[in-house]
Amino acid sequence: MVKPTLILGFGNVGTRCVELMLKGVCHADILVVGVSDSSGGVFCSDGLDLAALLSHKKTSGGVSQFKMEGASFVGSSQELYELCKFNKRYSCALSLVIDLSPVDLKTGGVSLPILQDALASGIHCVLANKAPLVLDYTNLTNLARSNNASILFSATVCGGLPVINVGRRDLIGAKFHKISGIFNSTSNYVLVQLEKGFTVAAAIRDAQQIGIAEADPSLDLEGYDTANKLVIITNSVMGFPCTLADVDLSGIQGVTKEDIDAAKDHGETIRLVATATRIDDGAGTGAVTLSVKPTRVSLHSFFGRCSDTSMCVRFDTDIYEEIEMMTYEKGVYPTSAAVLRDCFDVCAGHSS
Amino acid sequence: MVKPTLILGFGNVGTRCVELMLKGVCHADILVVGVSDSSGGVFCSDGLDLAALLSHKKTSGGVSQFKMEGASFVGSSQELYELCKFNKRYSCALSLVIDLSPVDLKTGGVSLPILQDALASGIHCVLANKAPLVLDYTNLTNLARSNNASILFSATVCGGLPVINVGRRDLIGAKFHKISGIFNSTSNYVLVQLEKGFTVAAAIRDAQQIGIAEADPSLDLEGYDTANKLVIITNSVMGFPCTLADVDLSGIQGVTKEDIDAAKDHGETIRLVATATRIDDGAGTGAVTLSVKPTRVSLHSFFGRCSDTSMCVRFDTDIYEEIEMMTYEKGVYPTSAAVLRDCFDVCAGHSS
Repeated sequence: MVKPTLILGFGNVGTRCVELMLKGVCHADILVVGVSDSSGGVFCSDGLDLAALLSHKKTSGGVSQFKMEGASFVGSSQELYELCKFNKRYSCALSLVIDLSPVDLKTGGVSLPILQDALASGIHCVLANKAPLVLDYTNLTNLARSNNASILFSATVCGGLPVINVGRRDLIGAKFHKISGIFNSTSNYVLVQLEKGFTVAAAIRDAQQIGIAEADPSLDLEGYDTANKLVIITNSVMGFPCTLADVDLSGIQGVTKEDIDAAKDHGETIRLVATATRIDDGAGTGAVTLSVKPTRVSLHSFFGRCSDTSMCVRFDTDIYEEIEMMTYEKGVYPTSAAVLRDCFDVCAGHSS
Repeated sequence: MVKPTLILGFGNVGTRCVELMLKGVCHADILVVGVSDSSGGVFCSDGLDLAALLSHKKTSGGVSQFKMEGASFVGSSQELYELCKFNKRYSCALSLVIDLSPVDLKTGGVSLPILQDALASGIHCVLANKAPLVLDYTNLTNLARSNNASILFSATVCGGLPVINVGRRDLIGAKFHKISGIFNSTSNYVLVQLEKGFTVAAAIRDAQQIGIAEADPSLDLEGYDTANKLVIITNSVMGFPCTLADVDLSGIQGVTKEDIDAAKDHGETIRLVATATRIDDGAGTGAVTLSVKPTRVSLHSFFGRCSDTSMCVRFDTDIYEEIEMMTYEKGVYPTSAAVLRDCFDVCAGHSS
């Protein structure tokens, strides 16, 4: 059955999602009826011509002014959502909202109220945008559960590496003693470039050129992006409600070439390591302590081997013992592919 | 809804599965009505007293002579299966068969015809036993598909490490250029002990004592266990039908301390590496070459770091780029936990 779908955000991840859809990567029955970016939103109840929209976006930089028979243009994501939701073309007006908007940790951005309304209306949501989960995890997942909607977000943590899915599905039934990892490729890239003798400024320029760092990389370097991912993992995999305020956070701004050289003298290097550690309180309920900080690790250890733009995670569990996973991804396609795997799971009826 | 379940095989993996069930690890609505081992099978339509059965098995070494009100004893797994299948106690007589029987590569063992009949009858199957998949993959999965039954086997490859699930579910839509790994903990343990200066005989004794090696470890050392897993991965993840006959196979029988010392002089060591490499034929369909052989790898590489009883896999893909996973498991619990995660997925309605 065709699933009318709205995509919020049409930047690096969104355009590549559409490229992959056009290549037939996701066999789910998705019909994209709306796409928005900062220039506004386009809607067509018969489905947008995605190849033409992609080409228009590449030429003009936005979806505004996109011309297609039957398509209409609105000024905002919120208006677009309402157009989609009250569309009468299909028995189910809107099946799926894909949120690929930029992270806005202050308010959750324009997508947060849309996601809340969508889930409350039984519309499935797939997110690569971390902010709504970091700010409103418990509410969003409760809304999903009580309205029989799915909320999937495997693309929010470590791109294509299925950290969330393995933690929730494959390690089901496990007690997690600790989950730790390197979750931000920009800060990791900068540390590795420092190791190689480059300056922080040169490393950031480089990371921007290869497309992994934002124009303002402070969220990456100050550890907020890593902390966001840790908060999502702790909520969704370990089952402990928490927010950014619970994370003991230091970024890599203060790390110098001298620190790294001093570590190297001991066969070590420095990585920005995120850790969620379960503290047993004797009553069986437990608690968790969360930290993100530059950490000395052995050069040949799992974390030490996490080089350049790689990211990784380590699960310390009871019944599955210890499991490590690493991705060597260099670009944005794996994140976009992860969005599509969630779409596929939604269409296959999987809710977690 | 309660799922009447039959467990074939009650050895290392089976007894630990039941232990974990008793601890409440798997919240699926499983009701174990039959359990068999080489001594015969016990049946109780109201559900077996698993704690009592486990204790009986530990004392007597088998399920025969197990006393419980309402339970009956039969001589074979086949008879037990028929008792379960034609049981009238529940609307669905038998929902699930869990095959944990010993690997029999000649005939598939007593469980193969049971699995075939079960799937043909719409009964779900979960396997830790590799033989039926290695010998009859295409037929079994076709039977499952055409009778709306699930066949899940995430415990057959690398214990608790979700190699099959990540390959099939999380990397969905990907083209696999290569899948490689170290899939057998006994042969890996032996190689690492050789590295440390022990003899092969001492290493095998050790591996038997910690419970990872069989009394006859030849299937492990000659590479058959690794090849079995490679065949299962190639069929199920890469989608290329193949059998053991397609694998270019050498085990570690011929590897000497001298070989390992020679490798070490170059910063390398030796691991039993399995590889499935996709060969593009230009027509887009492609083919795959399969090999299992002792391979020199850098000491600090991913494979070189796979030490003692660890196992690992590396996926080389297009859209997800490269992903590596390693498990440090030392015992049998992760395999048993993997069986339970498949049971959970069956009960949740997931078929792949």
